[in-house]
Amino acid sequence: MKNHLKIVLVLYLIMTSCTSAQSLKTDVSNSNLIHPNLILTKEGVKTIRENLGTIPIFDNTLAKVKEEIDAEIEKGFDVPIPKDYSGGYTHSTHKKNYSLMQKAGMLYQILDDESYAKYVKDMLFEYARLYPTLPIHPKPRSYARGKLFWQCLNDSNWLVYTSQAYDCIYDYLTKEERTVLETDLFRPFANHISKDNPQFFNRVHNHSTWGNVAVGMIALVMEDDSLLQRALYGLKDVEIDKTLKDNDGGYINKDGKTGFFANLDEPFSPDGYYTEGPYYQRYAMYPFLIFAQALQNKKPDLKVLEYKDGVLLKGVNALLNLSNANGDFFLLNDSQKGMSYYNTSLVSAVDIAYHFGGNNPELLSIAKKQEEVTLDDSGLSVALGIKENRAIPFVKSSIELSDGANGDEGAVGILRSDDLELVFKYTAHGLSHGHYDKLSFALFENGDEIVQDYGMSRYVNIEQKGGGNYLKENKTWAKQSISHNTLVQNEMSHFNGKYDKGSQHHSESYLFSVENKNLQVASAKESNAYPGTTMHRTMVLIKDDKDSKPYILDILKVDSDKINQYDLPFYYLGQIMQTSFDYEKHDFPVVFGSKNGYQHLYKEAFGVSNDANMKLTWLLNNKFYSYSAVSSNEDEMILGRIGANDPEFNLRHEPTLILRRKNTKNTVFASIIESHGTYSPVSELALNAYSNIKNISVVHNDTDYTAVQYENNNGELKLFILSNREASTDKEHSLQIDENIISWTGAFILKEILTE
Amino acid sequence: MKNHLKIVLVLYLIMTSCTSAQSLKTDVSNSNLIHPNLILTKEGVKTIRENLGTIPIFDNTLAKVKEEIDAEIEKGFDVPIPKDYSGGYTHSTHKKNYSLMQKAGMLYQILDDESYAKYVKDMLFEYARLYPTLPIHPKPRSYARGKLFWQCLNDSNWLVYTSQAYDCIYDYLTKEERTVLETDLFRPFANHISKDNPQFFNRVHNHSTWGNVAVGMIALVMEDDSLLQRALYGLKDVEIDKTLKDNDGGYINKDGKTGFFANLDEPFSPDGYYTEGPYYQRYAMYPFLIFAQALQNKKPDLKVLEYKDGVLLKGVNALLNLSNANGDFFLLNDSQKGMSYYNTSLVSAVDIAYHFGGNNPELLSIAKKQEEVTLDDSGLSVALGIKENRAIPFVKSSIELSDGANGDEGAVGILRSDDLELVFKYTAHGLSHGHYDKLSFALFENGDEIVQDYGMSRYVNIEQKGGGNYLKENKTWAKQSISHNTLVQNEMSHFNGKYDKGSQHHSESYLFSVENKNLQVASAKESNAYPGTTMHRTMVLIKDDKDSKPYILDILKVDSDKINQYDLPFYYLGQIMQTSFDYEKHDFPVVFGSKNGYQHLYKEAFGVSNDANMKLTWLLNNKFYSYSAVSSNEDEMILGRIGANDPEFNLRHEPTLILRRKNTKNTVFASIIESHGTYSPVSELALNAYSNIKNISVVHNDTDYTAVQYENNNGELKLFILSNREASTDKEHSLQIDENIISWTGAFILKEILTE
Repeated sequence: MKNHLKIVLVLYLIMTSCTSAQSLKTDVSNSNLIHPNLILTKEGVKTIRENLGTIPIFDNTLAKVKEEIDAEIEKGFDVPIPKDYSGGYTHSTHKKNYSLMQKAGMLYQILDDESYAKYVKDMLFEYARLYPTLPIHPKPRSYARGKLFWQCLNDSNWLVYTSQAYDCIYDYLTKEERTVLETDLFRPFANHISKDNPQFFNRVHNHSTWGNVAVGMIALVMEDDSLLQRALYGLKDVEIDKTLKDNDGGYINKDGKTGFFANLDEPFSPDGYYTEGPYYQRYAMYPFLIFAQALQNKKPDLKVLEYKDGVLLKGVNALLNLSNANGDFFLLNDSQKGMSYYNTSLVSAVDIAYHFGGNNPELLSIAKKQEEVTLDDSGLSVALGIKENRAIPFVKSSIELSDGANGDEGAVGILRSDDLELVFKYTAHGLSHGHYDKLSFALFENGDEIVQDYGMSRYVNIEQKGGGNYLKENKTWAKQSISHNTLVQNEMSHFNGKYDKGSQHHSESYLFSVENKNLQVASAKESNAYPGTTMHRTMVLIKDDKDSKPYILDILKVDSDKINQYDLPFYYLGQIMQTSFDYEKHDFPVVFGSKNGYQHLYKEAFGVSNDANMKLTWLLNNKFYSYSAVSSNEDEMILGRIGANDPEFNLRHEPTLILRRKNTKNTVFASIIESHGTYSPVSELALNAYSNIKNISVVHNDTDYTAVQYENNNGELKLFILSNREASTDKEHSLQIDENIISWTGAFILKEILTE
Repeated sequence: MKNHLKIVLVLYLIMTSCTSAQSLKTDVSNSNLIHPNLILTKEGVKTIRENLGTIPIFDNTLAKVKEEIDAEIEKGFDVPIPKDYSGGYTHSTHKKNYSLMQKAGMLYQILDDESYAKYVKDMLFEYARLYPTLPIHPKPRSYARGKLFWQCLNDSNWLVYTSQAYDCIYDYLTKEERTVLETDLFRPFANHISKDNPQFFNRVHNHSTWGNVAVGMIALVMEDDSLLQRALYGLKDVEIDKTLKDNDGGYINKDGKTGFFANLDEPFSPDGYYTEGPYYQRYAMYPFLIFAQALQNKKPDLKVLEYKDGVLLKGVNALLNLSNANGDFFLLNDSQKGMSYYNTSLVSAVDIAYHFGGNNPELLSIAKKQEEVTLDDSGLSVALGIKENRAIPFVKSSIELSDGANGDEGAVGILRSDDLELVFKYTAHGLSHGHYDKLSFALFENGDEIVQDYGMSRYVNIEQKGGGNYLKENKTWAKQSISHNTLVQNEMSHFNGKYDKGSQHHSESYLFSVENKNLQVASAKESNAYPGTTMHRTMVLIKDDKDSKPYILDILKVDSDKINQYDLPFYYLGQIMQTSFDYEKHDFPVVFGSKNGYQHLYKEAFGVSNDANMKLTWLLNNKFYSYSAVSSNEDEMILGRIGANDPEFNLRHEPTLILRRKNTKNTVFASIIESHGTYSPVSELALNAYSNIKNISVVHNDTDYTAVQYENNNGELKLFILSNREASTDKEHSLQIDENIISWTGAFILKEILTE
């Protein structure tokens, strides 16, 4: 049935493309008809039509889109009076409509079938009828309320897509029709999201990127240069109170920078990392790239893709590198789990980056996984590349991506070895979507999260959960330091959970060394999160030999000018198999604290270290993991669980282990994380169910050097030494430990200690 | 690399098979050499050798086994002094050894390479050296302690496999060598698990099935008829105390039945259902079938596969039907999650059933999924069937499988429609592995558990968790009624949790009607779980039309001779999205009770019904589910979680919703369970996030009839009526509800009510 449909469609496409190729000549001869020229181009349409039926990934995408739009045309559309928050009917319908118009516009161009143009036209006129009657959207929650949607952000989404549809049917409309649409709909629409809402439009933020691009896209279609200037450089002569904040607590515009180029300058680092993190980078990439594509077509002199040394194309590469083995993005700052490079905006991003960025054949392998291309010139390029078998694997290696407009505001370090992927965060704050989690990390194995970052507390577009918007637990739990795998001092969040402070600082990359695949080191320092305290964390991914599994050595050196209590949470996912320490389960879970996220944690059990080490072994997805940490006699171990003070069951009730060290000034937390075994519920065999680490200890710690020694079950003793103040690769060091003098070159050494 | 290896191996196999075919003639001419004749036969070996290299599934299995055994031969073996419980080194090693010997024996026969025979011989002699020195196994926990293992059960496993290995190399050994092995190892071994442990050997239980078969297999190889009689009919002249119980609380031998045939008679119903449930059926099937295969080869006159109307072959079919869409077995009684028809014993079962049971081509599709066959005559048959493209899909439909030796002790009803699979349990107790969960159910969608049965509290072979054995929470939690989706009266388990009582009774199937695929009904009664109370539960799987998703109507009618408190737990898995009722979360989780499983539950929140209905919507695996139940003003809703009084984190902290109805004699619990929507974290679209059920009510309830009416969001009103006392399909009924008189034929009717 499905195959049958496909064959019929392909035949139809071939026939259409023949007749179209002929009619195209007539069109082209009429020099007044220059549309489309935004995303699709006249020339592109011609080439697409010539290739239809021979480019499987494009043909399949087209068939799917055609099937979808045909069904929608059959059903008819609705342009309801705006009423709901995200997830509600009017919200979803307007959201759906812009996507339908954009797709129908493309179908019109590619298939040369006027029923699609008519569909877009009818819907646009319905909007042109409705729009002038609309007051501000009735829902009051946004700092910048839209008209079709509760926030200008969504109105901007609408215009970015609809501009493309308008471009596609521009020549199908009469001049009079265009005048009506532009007068009643597009110009007032563009003005509402810009002039009427400068606090939204004149910012450096993903919101205003959408706003800028929306105005820019419609400006390009209407060839309105004044609007285009507004898009590129912001509203002029508008004063915004610099202390104003948005709903998420982010500053509206502290620095006075505005417009598309400012949004390109600021949040992207020279490596293409977007300071809010990959979840929002994915969201922001679409407008950035779609507008870049349009500018490339219509204003090539602006050389937007070469701007800031090609930062937009680097951004695509950064984003792909910020995904795990399944293509899911790492959870940095506000992010919903499961967002991945299968998202439509990444389909655009990959296709545009391929088409305009030198045809990198690695991108073709991502496109093949996506099984979809954009129905435009970029998508055609990709489809042709795949057809010609030019795809090669996109290899994700260890990589450090700098943060900050100039790349000097910390970084994200990603260490990869075999199936393990470790994400270590030492970035700037990440604007209003930032979390208070300096030097935190998360660990994945083969795409599964093993030691988790909670992500955000939000069920995007699920209306039952707070209208699909951020839940209050996002602020009280998900952003707080204790919800992350990082150090918490005296039960306070980093920067005391204050955005004003957090956004002024960033961690510092100390070193990132991944040339030796068997000894990869990422090290970073943070000295502002707690005034008077410095944290220096070093994460080492070690592979002893080619047959053994890699493991992680984690060394967190803390130095303070006063005595503190330190909590180091470890958010393992799965079921406890065994602990090396004794613990007492409470009769019932006890709420851990009253604020800074502690109010959302239950203490389930409590233990005190009775050994120089503590070990937790757990089972997840039929794999055995262990966490072996240096502990002292006074360390407390708290087995906890998320879920306290959660009146609407918004939180996931997942476990944690917190190592608490009291009355301490300077200390080192050192541990090893292993994935060491497997279980099969089918054969019921447990392989390597036990940790391979016999012991671990800190054998030296001062201002200059920290040294950690560990022994495995084969009796192999290893010593890792880090120079704490000198990261250069050619500096020579020497350190005496016990009777041995160890000398080496470079910031660190991992050495096997031979024992008698 | 891997492919390369395969090609080399196939070439090797072809070459070997050519030379072997020649040498075979010489062998056959020597009439003294009659081995192997147990599982592999001389004739089978000949045909296998002729076909090698042309039967992919067999060749691949052989290649894998060869690779495994070659690596093990390279490594060398260990026969350690027994010491550990399950999961420990000596346990795992002896377990591994018998499997290695069995495989090496087959390789010797198939590949005609003496290095495999030598490997088996060397290991056997190591065992023959060790065995006479062994005392009873040092670990004391079993009611029947073995010598190699902590329980005779595992010793029996060893002998079942090792007998096959012995048969394979029988002719490779000299008579003197065989005498040593039989005198020092096999006969004393067989005696220990039979004569020395009659409480283990003379039972009707999966343990003694293994024991009987172990003795039977070695008897067949050694051609020892007296031992064979012991295997088939039990130890004679042994008196066992009829009130004795085993570790699991099951009677050792209440009825005095013994031997292999008794074990075939008793636990299997005429439909092939094994009363302990599929998890143990899977375990028991291997010895049943492997011995049946051996008997078929050596004692065809016993016609073991025709015994009890072919119950063993029916058992294979029953077992396959007791698996979900992924092939995982339903959780009936003690069962570990994840056990499936991919287990090796099912590979044997499917292959034997195919070979000896009339070459059912549906079984070939299961074998294809298993990607593995047994390396014997049965496996060859399957491989040839697959090669000849005879496989057709194994279609699992709705089915009722009777329980009890005569099929009159209740049943399991499985209702299937689209992706939904509902398992409804109204069986007998299930021997010592039974749970106290009369009329309980579980729901799966496309292989995922949606409304769960907890399964057992045990991590099989994971040494860290109680030596891999049953944990104490299995008795205090997993077996108790409150841990299941069934009714609990006055916080007491069914039969007060007493095996003596529970094992005397069974539920009664009332009706099972699945001819109409859009209206499938399973209904059963239980009148012994609580003396003076009868429960009558009816589960209806309804599909309104071909485009809509099926849903479940659940009607549980309770009648008692006194006033009680009723709890109906609902073990949904996933995250709460919304409830229709208000609830108050407790400041901290409160332990629910002190016994009967309640001590393991936390109350997290509490609500009182303020409406005639209560609804819970939850999200699991990106699907939306709803539970809509009739409630009264006094019903309490408890949102709970497993995990209280669990000092070693043995339990999974999963949620439940308990509907509590107090001070009630007779009542009806009526509800609808839907799978209605989906969420994509990639597109962030929520489709059909809301339940389609507007309301549900009980409109009639008396001794004769129960009627439930419900309305969906389209305003369609439906009425389901059940005749409570007359299940016949041709009986005519008539009932007045409000002004309408409804007449129908058969035990039930589902009727759309037309409203003005």
